Amino acid sequence: MGVSIGELAVQFGCELRGDPGVVVERVATLAAADERSVAFLANPRYRRELIGTRAGAVVLAAEAAAACPGAALVCGNPHATYARIAAVLHPLPAGPAGIHPSAVVSPQARVDPSAHVGALSVIGADATVGARAFIGPQCLIGECAVVGEDVRLVGRVTLCRGVEVGARTVIQPGAVIGGDGFGFAQEQGRWIKVPQIGTVRVGCDVEIGANTTVDRGAIEDTVIEEGVKLDNLIQIGHNVRVGAHSALAACVGVSGSTSIGQRCMIGGQVGIGGHLTISDDVMITGCTMVSHSISSPGVYSGGIPFEDASTWRRLVGRFKRLESFAARLKALERRPGGPPDQEEDDD
Amino acid sequence: MGVSIGELAVQFGCELRGDPGVVVERVATLAAADERSVAFLANPRYRRELIGTRAGAVVLAAEAAAACPGAALVCGNPHATYARIAAVLHPLPAGPAGIHPSAVVSPQARVDPSAHVGALSVIGADATVGARAFIGPQCLIGECAVVGEDVRLVGRVTLCRGVEVGARTVIQPGAVIGGDGFGFAQEQGRWIKVPQIGTVRVGCDVEIGANTTVDRGAIEDTVIEEGVKLDNLIQIGHNVRVGAHSALAACVGVSGSTSIGQRCMIGGQVGIGGHLTISDDVMITGCTMVSHSISSPGVYSGGIPFEDASTWRRLVGRFKRLESFAARLKALERRPGGPPDQEEDDD
Amino acid sequence: MGVSIGELAVQFGCELRGDPGVVVERVATLAAADERSVAFLANPRYRRELIGTRAGAVVLAAEAAAACPGAALVCGNPHATYARIAAVLHPLPAGPAGIHPSAVVSPQARVDPSAHVGALSVIGADATVGARAFIGPQCLIGECAVVGEDVRLVGRVTLCRGVEVGARTVIQPGAVIGGDGFGFAQEQGRWIKVPQIGTVRVGCDVEIGANTTVDRGAIEDTVIEEGVKLDNLIQIGHNVRVGAHSALAACVGVSGSTSIGQRCMIGGQVGIGGHLTISDDVMITGCTMVSHSISSPGVYSGGIPFEDASTWRRLVGRFKRLESFAARLKALERRPGGPPDQEEDDD
Repeated sequence: MGVSIGELAVQFGCELRGDPGVVVERVATLAAADERSVAFLANPRYRRELIGTRAGAVVLAAEAAAACPGAALVCGNPHATYARIAAVLHPLPAGPAGIHPSAVVSPQARVDPSAHVGALSVIGADATVGARAFIGPQCLIGECAVVGEDVRLVGRVTLCRGVEVGARTVIQPGAVIGGDGFGFAQEQGRWIKVPQIGTVRVGCDVEIGANTTVDRGAIEDTVIEEGVKLDNLIQIGHNVRVGAHSALAACVGVSGSTSIGQRCMIGGQVGIGGHLTISDDVMITGCTMVSHSISSPGVYSGGIPFEDASTWRRLVGRFKRLESFAARLKALERRPGGPPDQEEDDD
Repeated sequence: MGVSIGELAVQFGCELRGDPGVVVERVATLAAADERSVAFLANPRYRRELIGTRAGAVVLAAEAAAACPGAALVCGNPHATYARIAAVLHPLPAGPAGIHPSAVVSPQARVDPSAHVGALSVIGADATVGARAFIGPQCLIGECAVVGEDVRLVGRVTLCRGVEVGARTVIQPGAVIGGDGFGFAQEQGRWIKVPQIGTVRVGCDVEIGANTTVDRGAIEDTVIEEGVKLDNLIQIGHNVRVGAHSALAACVGVSGSTSIGQRCMIGGQVGIGGHLTISDDVMITGCTMVSHSISSPGVYSGGIPFEDASTWRRLVGRFKRLESFAARLKALERRPGGPPDQEEDDD
Repeated sequence: MGVSIGELAVQFGCELRGDPGVVVERVATLAAADERSVAFLANPRYRRELIGTRAGAVVLAAEAAAACPGAALVCGNPHATYARIAAVLHPLPAGPAGIHPSAVVSPQARVDPSAHVGALSVIGADATVGARAFIGPQCLIGECAVVGEDVRLVGRVTLCRGVEVGARTVIQPGAVIGGDGFGFAQEQGRWIKVPQIGTVRVGCDVEIGANTTVDRGAIEDTVIEEGVKLDNLIQIGHNVRVGAHSALAACVGVSGSTSIGQRCMIGGQVGIGGHLTISDDVMITGCTMVSHSISSPGVYSGGIPFEDASTWRRLVGRFKRLESFAARLKALERRPGGPPDQEEDDD
C-alpha cells in the first residue's frame, strides 16, 4: 500500500522539501530505509545516520532538514508525526464485524454489530461491547463488563466482572483487569478474605501492557484515568488512582489506595507503597522505592548504580560501618582544637 | 438482598447498639454509606469520617462506639467481622453445577457433579475436581491435577500436570501453577534442561493472585501450605516451601529451594535468594534484598527511601567515595592526639 | 518404565561401578531414593547424604565415587548426565499428531501433520507449525507466526502476529511473545502510540518461563538468540537482543534497545536500563540496577543485604547525612596538623 509523500505532507501538516510524487510503502530506520521507506529523526544521536540514509523521505525538525540527503517532511514534532504516518502505512489487522462461531457469548450480553469478537472468546451476561471494538481471540469478558467504542483487546485479555474500559483503549495479551485486591483481615494468626466489592474503571485512550494486573477495588473502584500508559508486568493494587496521561514503565508495583497524579512518568521496577499521594508532573527514575508521599512536581530517585562485585562488596562493608564512622568522627571532633559547628546535626 | 442488623449481630456475635430491625443491603465506606449500607471502622485514621457517617450500621470496636452517630455492631475484631458481613451481603456469583458444553473435559477426568466447569475450560486425563468447586471460564487443568472441594479458580487459571490444590483455595486469573522450574545444567557454555519431575502442592484456604507463577519442583515438590496468601505477579521458584498463614505482597520473587516459615509477612518487590531458610514470624519490609537466611522472628529491612534527584545524586556520589572517607578518617586519627579506640574495627 | 544402569552407562558415556543389571525407573534425591531410583551428586554440600543413600545408582564425579555406598555412574559432569538420564526416565507427555477438534486453525495456516495442536488453541492465517511441534491446549498463535520443529508450547502460550520461534524451544504457560513495545511520542502532554512494526525472533533451544513477556520491535525486531534461558515474569523490551546461551533469572526487566552479550548470567530482579550494551560473559548478581553499559566480562553487583529494621533505619539515617559527614571530615582536616593528601578527591 503506497502513499505519496505529498499526500502525507498535506495530511499531517508537514513542510515538504522534495518531490511530492515519491511513493512510500513502509517505515524503516534511517540505516535500513530504502527509497520506498519513510524514516524519522527525533533523537540527535542518530544524526550521523541521517547523512547516509537512502530513505524515500525523512520526517524531521527544521533544524535538521539541511542535512537530509533526500526528501524531507519537516514538522515541529517528528516523533509524533512519524507515529501517525506509521499508523497509516501499517494499519493494524481489523477483524471482520461479528462474533466468531467458536466464541461463547451470553445471550444477555450486548455486542454492537460492528464489533469483532474473536475465536474462543467468552463474554458474560450483561456485558456490553461498543461499536467497532476489536475483541481478539481467547479474551474473557466478565459479567456486566463494559467495553467502549474502538477498544482493542489484542487477544487473551481478561476483564473481570463489572470492569469498564473507555473508548479507544488498547490492552495487550495476558493483562488481567479486575482480579480481587489483596485484602485480608487478620484473626488469631489467620487471614479472613475481605470481599472485593469495587471494580476497575479504565478511561479512554489508555494502553495496558502484557501480563499487567490491575486489581478491583475493595469497596470503591480502582481508577485508571484517560490517556494513561501502563507497560508490561505492572501491578496496580486495589483502590489506586493513576492520573490522566501518566506513563508507568514495566515491572512497577503500586500498592493499594495510592493516588498518582497526572502526567507522571514512573521508571521501570519502581515500587510505590500504599496509601500515598504522588503529585502531578512527578518523574521517578527506575528502581526507586517510594515509601512516602510526594507533594511537589520534580524528579525523584532512589537507585544506586552498580559496581564490579569486589568494589561493591567493599562499599557495602563501609556502608554497614557508618555507625562506627560517625562515632570516630565525633571522637576526632572532641580532640583539642574545638568541635566543628556541624556536630550538633549528628545525634 | 436485605438483612436486618439484628440478624447480623446474632450471626457474627456482635453487641448491637441501635434498632435491630434496620435492614442493610450492601457495604460502603463511612463517607459514602447511606442508611441501607453497613460500614466499618478498624483504622483510627478514619474516626473523623465516623462522626459524619449516614451508614445504617457501623461495625466497630467498643472504644469507638460512643462516637458512632447511628446503629453500631460492636465486636472485638471489626475488620474480620466486616469481612464476614460483606461476604453475606455480596455473595460471589456461583456457577451452576455441571460442565459447560464448550469445555473440553477428558473422559478420564473425574469431575464431581456438584462442581461448575466454565466455558472453554480444559480438564486433562485423570484430573480430579472436588465437590462444589468453581472452575471459571478458560481454565486449564492438566493431567492428574487434583482440585479440592470448594476451590474457586476465577477464570483463565493454569494448573499444570499433577498440581494439587487444597479445599477452599482461591486462584485469580492468569496464575500459572506448576510451570517448569528454572533448572539447567551447564556443559561447555550451553545449558542442558533438567527435567522438572516434582509438582506443586497448594494447601487449603490459600489465595493466589493474578499472573503469579509457582514453579513445579525439580525432583520433590514445591509446597504452599494452608492459609498462605500470595498477591499478584509473585514468582515462587522450584522446591520453595511457604509456611502456613504467611502473606506475600505483589512482585515478590522467591528463588529455588528456599523455605519461608509460618505467619511471615513479606512486603512488595522483596527478592529472596535461593536455598535460604526464613524463620517463622518474620516481617520483611518492601523492596528488601534477602541474601542470607533469617533465624529469628522480627522485622527486617533493606530499602532506602528516595530523595529528589539532585540530592540523591550527591548522596550516591558520597556513597561511592566511602573508601576514601575511611582512609581520610584513619589519616586524621593518626595525627598527634592519639588514635580513638574504634580504629581497629575498620580494617 | 525401567532401564538397566548398564544401558545408561553406555548411552551417556559413564564409567559404571556396580552391577550393570540393576534396573532403575525414576530419579530421586539422595535422601529419598530407593533401589529403583537414580540420584546424583553435583554439589559437595550433599556429600553427607551420599553416604546414607539407598539409590539404585548415583551419578557422580570420580572424586566422589569412593564414598558411594551402592552402584555409581561416574562421569565428568554429573549434573548434565543426570539431566539426560532424567529425560529418559521421565519423558514429557507427547500429544498425538494432529489437530484437536476444538482448536480453531485458519485454513491458511500450515501445520505439519506430525505436529500436535491441543484443545482450544487458535492458529491464525499464514502461520506455520513445524514437524513434531507440541502446541499445548489454549495456545494462541497469531497470523504469520512461525513455529519451528520440535518446539514445545506447554499450554496457554501467546505468540503474536509474525513471531518466529526456533527449533526445540520450550515456552511455559502465560508467556506473551510479541506484544506491542512501549512506544509513545509525546505531544502537548499526551501520548501518541507509535505503531510497533517489528516482530520477535526467538532462536533454537531457547526456554521462556511462565508469564514472561517479550515485546515486538518498534521498527526492527527483538531478538532472543539460540540457547537463551529466560525464567518466569521477565520483561524484555522492544528491540532488545539477548545473546546466545545467556540465562536470566526471574523478575528481571530489560528496557528497550539494550543488547546483552553471550553467556551472560543475570540474577533475579535485576533492572537493566534502555539503550545499553552488556558485554559477553557478564554475571550480574540479583537486585542490581544496571544504569550504564558494561564493556568487560566480570561479576557486577548493586544490591545491599538487609539488616534488622532498627539497625537498617540507623544506617539509612547515616547514609542520608553523608553530605554532613563529608563537611565535618573536611573541617577536621583543616585544623592545625595539615590536610591529608586525599582531600582533593572530595569536592
